[in-house]
Amino acid sequence: MNSDTSWAAVDWGSTNVRAFLLADGPRVLAQTRASMGSKNTSQADYQDVLDQLFTELGEAPARILLAGMVGSRAGWQEVPYCPCPAGVSDLAAHAIAPPERPDVRIVPGLSCRRASGSGDVMRGEEVQCSGAMHLEPDAASVCLPGTHCKWVRLAAGRIAEFTTFCTGELFDAVRRHTLLGALIPHEQVLDTEPGAGFAQGLQRATAEPGLLSALFSVRADALLGGIRLDQAADYLSGILIGAELREVRDAGMLESVLLIADGSLAVRYAAALRQFGAAVQEVASADAFVAGAALIAAQVAWD
Amino acid sequence: MNSDTSWAAVDWGSTNVRAFLLADGPRVLAQTRASMGSKNTSQADYQDVLDQLFTELGEAPARILLAGMVGSRAGWQEVPYCPCPAGVSDLAAHAIAPPERPDVRIVPGLSCRRASGSGDVMRGEEVQCSGAMHLEPDAASVCLPGTHCKWVRLAAGRIAEFTTFCTGELFDAVRRHTLLGALIPHEQVLDTEPGAGFAQGLQRATAEPGLLSALFSVRADALLGGIRLDQAADYLSGILIGAELREVRDAGMLESVLLIADGSLAVRYAAALRQFGAAVQEVASADAFVAGAALIAAQVAWD
Repeated sequence: MNSDTSWAAVDWGSTNVRAFLLADGPRVLAQTRASMGSKNTSQADYQDVLDQLFTELGEAPARILLAGMVGSRAGWQEVPYCPCPAGVSDLAAHAIAPPERPDVRIVPGLSCRRASGSGDVMRGEEVQCSGAMHLEPDAASVCLPGTHCKWVRLAAGRIAEFTTFCTGELFDAVRRHTLLGALIPHEQVLDTEPGAGFAQGLQRATAEPGLLSALFSVRADALLGGIRLDQAADYLSGILIGAELREVRDAGMLESVLLIADGSLAVRYAAALRQFGAAVQEVASADAFVAGAALIAAQVAWD
Repeated sequence: MNSDTSWAAVDWGSTNVRAFLLADGPRVLAQTRASMGSKNTSQADYQDVLDQLFTELGEAPARILLAGMVGSRAGWQEVPYCPCPAGVSDLAAHAIAPPERPDVRIVPGLSCRRASGSGDVMRGEEVQCSGAMHLEPDAASVCLPGTHCKWVRLAAGRIAEFTTFCTGELFDAVRRHTLLGALIPHEQVLDTEPGAGFAQGLQRATAEPGLLSALFSVRADALLGGIRLDQAADYLSGILIGAELREVRDAGMLESVLLIADGSLAVRYAAALRQFGAAVQEVASADAFVAGAALIAAQVAWD
């Protein structure tokens, strides 16, 4: 790929799509986002959505690298999972073009099988991890918070293994669909800066033997006056993130952590990680994605 | 209370109410149930619902003992939690009559504060525990599975401490309201006898470092072919019950267990407990409730 040609990288998740118009590798010329995630886009519509994104950005790039759920079975074109350990060259070698668009490549997701025998999968985070490794070469593990939080172990510049924690999804399900969450005021929105309940929840997560009992304390401590109701959502958030970090610590991954996150999640995870004694470096998710996409795009056989 | 007089015990939970017409202490003359739990009954209607239950049973008893959410703040008459340790005499001494019904007593729930600083509450299970201790005096702990599973530590014929696990509620929330559960066919009903996925889930719960990562394996292993989709609900059930028993084991409560449960939950918990190496005795929940209610009623100051 000629370095002075504009190109594009698109992070196409299940809920949102985010497109970057780039030049000279990772230099961002323009960017846009839309709520046309893979779960709202039918197979026949991907081309149109993609063209619209670049109409908005004012330029049709010569090369487009896509990553995320767009490569899943229910996406535009299924790209089989690449098994771990895997690095930039593996991702570039296994990227696939949709039949109708030779200018597009979709990056494969990764799969792994842990020593426990359990399997795991990711789609999209492998690009951010590739970028983060390049930006912060000393990191031993990467944390990518979200609906399904990924913890990635790095070794020799590749993704060695990873584990998914359903922390974000449980937060929503517990809050909205259980008696535990029924005491939390519905309109309560988490501020970017966590309230006092967050630290209390982290503390509870470390004091209780496990998550199933710690979770009930949201209800019991609200009934017994141990927590303020206006802090209950923060308390629940602290319990869940604390339980995740306990699991990560028990798995020996809580050292030299690179945190790829934005906004409220970045603040909460950074605070929680420091409370658990981890050394943390932070990278914004867009920066990690663009850096990783540039490394992969440079190794793709475009023609 | 005269032993030849009929009396009644009513287990009034949030979803269902179950009434027993009794004589000679715990001898059941008749029983009935209705879906008029406390969450479907307004404060003014409890008397009518109670009278209807005994119209169905064909007799208006002279004394009626109630237990469960009927004694909560949102119930008929709030009965403050009795702090642990507590036994039959404490429950009897703190039972309260609604002002309009001197023939009725509502048993208090229990509260406790664990060494971790976390509080806990129960309403209704204290009666079953009282009965179970009497039926099986050698038990060291009691397990009462359900939406909010209770594990109770017994000492010197009293309830010393207890812990609630939100296992049942998480099963429903994960299954119905998450991407993890989205792969499980909606109509899939758990059989009384657990399928092969249940043992696989138990095994996964013991192999993974924690619940948040084990839960994601429902999705990952379904995508990677590690579990059969028609076994996914059983797998999820095994992961959650296995995680609960791990927490209970870590808290040192997994010895000489008395299991108070019925149907599918009794079968699953008994199987899981045996797999964890626990000695298990089983008591049906109605038997435990009636036995406990008789012990408490005998000590209530009715006049």
